[in-house]
Amino acid sequence: MKILVVAPHGDDEVLGVGGTIARYALEGAEVYVVIVAQGFPPDFTEEQRIQDQKEALAAHKILGVKETIFLSFTAARLDTVPHRDVNKQIFDTLKKFQPDILFVPFVGDIHLDHQRVFLSSLVAARPNSPFAPKTIYAYETLSETNWNAPYLAPNFVPNVFIDISAYLETKLEAMQAYLSQIKRFPDERSEETIKALATLRGSTVNRYAAEAFYSIRQIL
Amino acid sequence: MKILVVAPHGDDEVLGVGGTIARYALEGAEVYVVIVAQGFPPDFTEEQRIQDQKEALAAHKILGVKETIFLSFTAARLDTVPHRDVNKQIFDTLKKFQPDILFVPFVGDIHLDHQRVFLSSLVAARPNSPFAPKTIYAYETLSETNWNAPYLAPNFVPNVFIDISAYLETKLEAMQAYLSQIKRFPDERSEETIKALATLRGSTVNRYAAEAFYSIRQIL
Amino acid sequence: MKILVVAPHGDDEVLGVGGTIARYALEGAEVYVVIVAQGFPPDFTEEQRIQDQKEALAAHKILGVKETIFLSFTAARLDTVPHRDVNKQIFDTLKKFQPDILFVPFVGDIHLDHQRVFLSSLVAARPNSPFAPKTIYAYETLSETNWNAPYLAPNFVPNVFIDISAYLETKLEAMQAYLSQIKRFPDERSEETIKALATLRGSTVNRYAAEAFYSIRQIL
Amino acid sequence: MKILVVAPHGDDEVLGVGGTIARYALEGAEVYVVIVAQGFPPDFTEEQRIQDQKEALAAHKILGVKETIFLSFTAARLDTVPHRDVNKQIFDTLKKFQPDILFVPFVGDIHLDHQRVFLSSLVAARPNSPFAPKTIYAYETLSETNWNAPYLAPNFVPNVFIDISAYLETKLEAMQAYLSQIKRFPDERSEETIKALATLRGSTVNRYAAEAFYSIRQIL
Amino acid sequence: MKILVVAPHGDDEVLGVGGTIARYALEGAEVYVVIVAQGFPPDFTEEQRIQDQKEALAAHKILGVKETIFLSFTAARLDTVPHRDVNKQIFDTLKKFQPDILFVPFVGDIHLDHQRVFLSSLVAARPNSPFAPKTIYAYETLSETNWNAPYLAPNFVPNVFIDISAYLETKLEAMQAYLSQIKRFPDERSEETIKALATLRGSTVNRYAAEAFYSIRQIL
Amino acid sequence: MKILVVAPHGDDEVLGVGGTIARYALEGAEVYVVIVAQGFPPDFTEEQRIQDQKEALAAHKILGVKETIFLSFTAARLDTVPHRDVNKQIFDTLKKFQPDILFVPFVGDIHLDHQRVFLSSLVAARPNSPFAPKTIYAYETLSETNWNAPYLAPNFVPNVFIDISAYLETKLEAMQAYLSQIKRFPDERSEETIKALATLRGSTVNRYAAEAFYSIRQIL
Repeated sequence: MKILVVAPHGDDEVLGVGGTIARYALEGAEVYVVIVAQGFPPDFTEEQRIQDQKEALAAHKILGVKETIFLSFTAARLDTVPHRDVNKQIFDTLKKFQPDILFVPFVGDIHLDHQRVFLSSLVAARPNSPFAPKTIYAYETLSETNWNAPYLAPNFVPNVFIDISAYLETKLEAMQAYLSQIKRFPDERSEETIKALATLRGSTVNRYAAEAFYSIRQIL
Repeated sequence: MKILVVAPHGDDEVLGVGGTIARYALEGAEVYVVIVAQGFPPDFTEEQRIQDQKEALAAHKILGVKETIFLSFTAARLDTVPHRDVNKQIFDTLKKFQPDILFVPFVGDIHLDHQRVFLSSLVAARPNSPFAPKTIYAYETLSETNWNAPYLAPNFVPNVFIDISAYLETKLEAMQAYLSQIKRFPDERSEETIKALATLRGSTVNRYAAEAFYSIRQIL
Repeated sequence: MKILVVAPHGDDEVLGVGGTIARYALEGAEVYVVIVAQGFPPDFTEEQRIQDQKEALAAHKILGVKETIFLSFTAARLDTVPHRDVNKQIFDTLKKFQPDILFVPFVGDIHLDHQRVFLSSLVAARPNSPFAPKTIYAYETLSETNWNAPYLAPNFVPNVFIDISAYLETKLEAMQAYLSQIKRFPDERSEETIKALATLRGSTVNRYAAEAFYSIRQIL
Repeated sequence: MKILVVAPHGDDEVLGVGGTIARYALEGAEVYVVIVAQGFPPDFTEEQRIQDQKEALAAHKILGVKETIFLSFTAARLDTVPHRDVNKQIFDTLKKFQPDILFVPFVGDIHLDHQRVFLSSLVAARPNSPFAPKTIYAYETLSETNWNAPYLAPNFVPNVFIDISAYLETKLEAMQAYLSQIKRFPDERSEETIKALATLRGSTVNRYAAEAFYSIRQIL
Repeated sequence: MKILVVAPHGDDEVLGVGGTIARYALEGAEVYVVIVAQGFPPDFTEEQRIQDQKEALAAHKILGVKETIFLSFTAARLDTVPHRDVNKQIFDTLKKFQPDILFVPFVGDIHLDHQRVFLSSLVAARPNSPFAPKTIYAYETLSETNWNAPYLAPNFVPNVFIDISAYLETKLEAMQAYLSQIKRFPDERSEETIKALATLRGSTVNRYAAEAFYSIRQIL
Repeated sequence: MKILVVAPHGDDEVLGVGGTIARYALEGAEVYVVIVAQGFPPDFTEEQRIQDQKEALAAHKILGVKETIFLSFTAARLDTVPHRDVNKQIFDTLKKFQPDILFVPFVGDIHLDHQRVFLSSLVAARPNSPFAPKTIYAYETLSETNWNAPYLAPNFVPNVFIDISAYLETKLEAMQAYLSQIKRFPDERSEETIKALATLRGSTVNRYAAEAFYSIRQIL
């Protein structure tokens, strides 16, 4: 089984899919991550960008990611890039890895980059493409998904729960590798909140810990 | 793999899940069907009810259903029965068969029986039950699902497509066994429309024929 | 300030509003609770019902509830009672207490009793009533709110967050008083999950713990 | 052209469709009204019921209604009547009048009677019926439509605007005939609010006054 | 009667409105089509663009379109053009033809060009404009409308059905003129799927074939 | 109490929040207004822009606004500006005034500028910001809010009603100061329609006049 996780920015893939990556990697799947946007000057320093890449690679090593790709779009400026160009690069990534399962960010996240990456991913994965994955799941991202407007934006309500009871610690370890991204509780992007969310999502389906997703498409 | 299909009335299970039943039965799954309501006097004659049962059993034989259960609720009068009683009997059916996958009618169908059976099925399958199936899919029913109010009732939009290219003929054959239910085109409950829907659902995901579902819950 | 919490069954008010009750009671508000349905024979034993009442009163004492009213509707059978009768008794309760703020269960909860109590409360609180409360909030209930169908039922998305950082312990203590209702983790109705939800809801707005609500109506 | 207006209770048809009835009647249409429920003892006195009928007939005369039918369901208790029975009587009414256009109350109205009448009307008017009207519009009812829960119930958003600039006065006159139903401003069921709504709905489409509807189905 | 169909790209108007154009043209309406975007270099060759225009004109001749306008926006790049500029050119088209009925693509289509054209059309047709059409319908487009995310994007649910039983063949003929756009089944943009959709939409309202629309606004 | 109203263009703040501003200013609140976009050449003349500013200041003086800020974005072209830049300037405004309550335009307004300003305001006011206001309300704007597509765009349904019975005249006076923006009835942006909307919104909650809002977030 091959899995591709599309992350608008480094750390989204750990927040949303970290435990699942760890689990499926251990169970034998090949897991790939593509990070769509990076912090380029002048909004960010080049040092920060290189640091971010290092952190991502460290986190991914912990999770068992097989290969990580960094696209060259600029973080927080995806709305200034032609939609077609983002579609194309995600399409090329799908062509390269030909995953069975595709994880995408949630369209209702407050960050416009997430919204754009969601739509571009769906376009790139149109079912008439030879590289269309059979399964597409959208993941939730603490510090993005809960901050959009209730009932006005699409709100995240999961219908897929992946048991990560045995992988929550690995997820937290990977998140710790993102030194520059992890925050102190009560910030949402903190260890305490990551644990709380995993506990809640697990408990909803009578498991100790879970990551939750919304199933966009499955072809059986 | 064990599968349970909950049908408010006989023929719903063929219209919505017929090809899928045929496919999975052939592939080795045990498929069970529970028909929740029957046409009792005075709304229907006893002869009609027995005829309906015969047709159901004939159709199910064609599809490869392993066992069919008929509950004793009265068709088109489920709103007059305590919700708790319907929950209980569906719960008992889940307990008996302990399916991996549960197929339920769609809550937005115009028929109040369908709406009630949907909710009762979800209650019976609550995730803290020892018999909670790991997967729940809602199916569409021609002559019910398309007749509710656009954007006011929940409208059916599928995210799961099961390829029935090799099983469409079997589905149609099973539907022909429901002599008293099949209608002449352009009625929605006709062979032509069943084919058209399978063609459309298949084509949406680049297959020759498919049945489409909405995934309510999956625990992985 | 006067507050009325409408609970379909005893413990819903603690799960959904427990911390808020404790906080506002301590801050000087008069808090009332009405429990709409009780477990009567034959579904439940009379001993159980009396035990439930005792637990409710013990929990409410911990929270600082001023007065608790038990209506005589039968739990899990509210769909068999005329809607008008439930409306009337909730209306009478509003008339008696004339609260400024009304807390109601969420209409999308999987339990039909919750759905009915929601609608009856809104009817009873129609804005042209002399006893219409100026504020109405709907609360979430673990083991009910997360178990309905994603995007088909109304899903709970909060827009009001009440800081209960200093009251989470009191809430948990009150929940412990409901001996017969509290379950062991990973059941949703467990101490661990109550804590996790409070942590998540708090963190979403940068607080240590919160209860979250959806604002139905505010008149300023 | 034949038009049928289904009113859960007398006065709903004037509040929602009064100006439109007056306009189309004057333009030559045959307009029929069916009032589904009446106030029977013990909830209402028989005197009140007879008075209500008189008021309805007076109002309908002003509007130019050709015939008014009173069904015998009990107001505010439609949830205690089998759904099938209401469907049947509305079906019979459709069969009798065979209208081109059917006006129904809005499913999101806070009054459960309105919700039930909506669904029964849609069932009765299923497109495979020989008496299925080609056009179905849902109307809004002051004092019902605006009082349900924002974003949780279906909320009324119109897509059909019928110009009643020349008929607003007739509508108000008909409403005055409902002596027992009209209230004093700022109650929603008042002359001032009826005027304000007509002004707003008209102005939205650059007309002096309009009634607004949601189009459920049109077959062309 | 004058009709204007707004197509983001050539062939959308045939897929969505082809049968309806053929019918109304034959019944005496003046039908105009505006194609908003074309395939310009470097994404497409100039030869392809000229070929597309020829195909469009051939298809429109078959359908009886009175006049076709090609705007000069670039296909698949409408997100890089100021919204105001698209609005302006659609406004000018409305001013030129002053249609009674306006057909627009569906806002939930997966193609961002369709989403933009939808919003620009609505802005251009604002009801306070002297050229505001009285009727606006949104159409569905095979290979766009069914590929967006269930329940997250606006999903297409029709409330207007136009009988094209006598015009389906003409529609298919027009689609064949789009040599470069028609695909082989099971691609959605194939003759088989166009037929299946027409069969389904027709059957839903008891007709042999129909095109289905969502009514955005009607002023009567 | 400090209040900040974000207006995409001058006059939106009066149409949506005028009465509320007048009331809270008189009751002692400090009210600030930020106008995000102005009409620059070549779309508008510099004279017009200066005139617009004068009108805004005159209107704000009538309402009791303490300070008005004009950002330098170009009206009707916000989609051509990087999202991040708009976020930044609204963030700076929040930092400067640190309001308790933030009023933002409605995301479903037909004007893309309104949609962008809504999202930028929410990003700027993320709950983990030190300047996050505790309360965020979205307001409706005549001539924008009612013109988007029913059930496809987010539609405005209010849950907060602020009584402006004593301030409607002041609101109308302020609107008259916007000489270049006020239109003649039956245009929606007219005195008659402003009155009608205030009457309807008030009457819905049994008040003589109200402005209505949707509560996005409240932290208590």
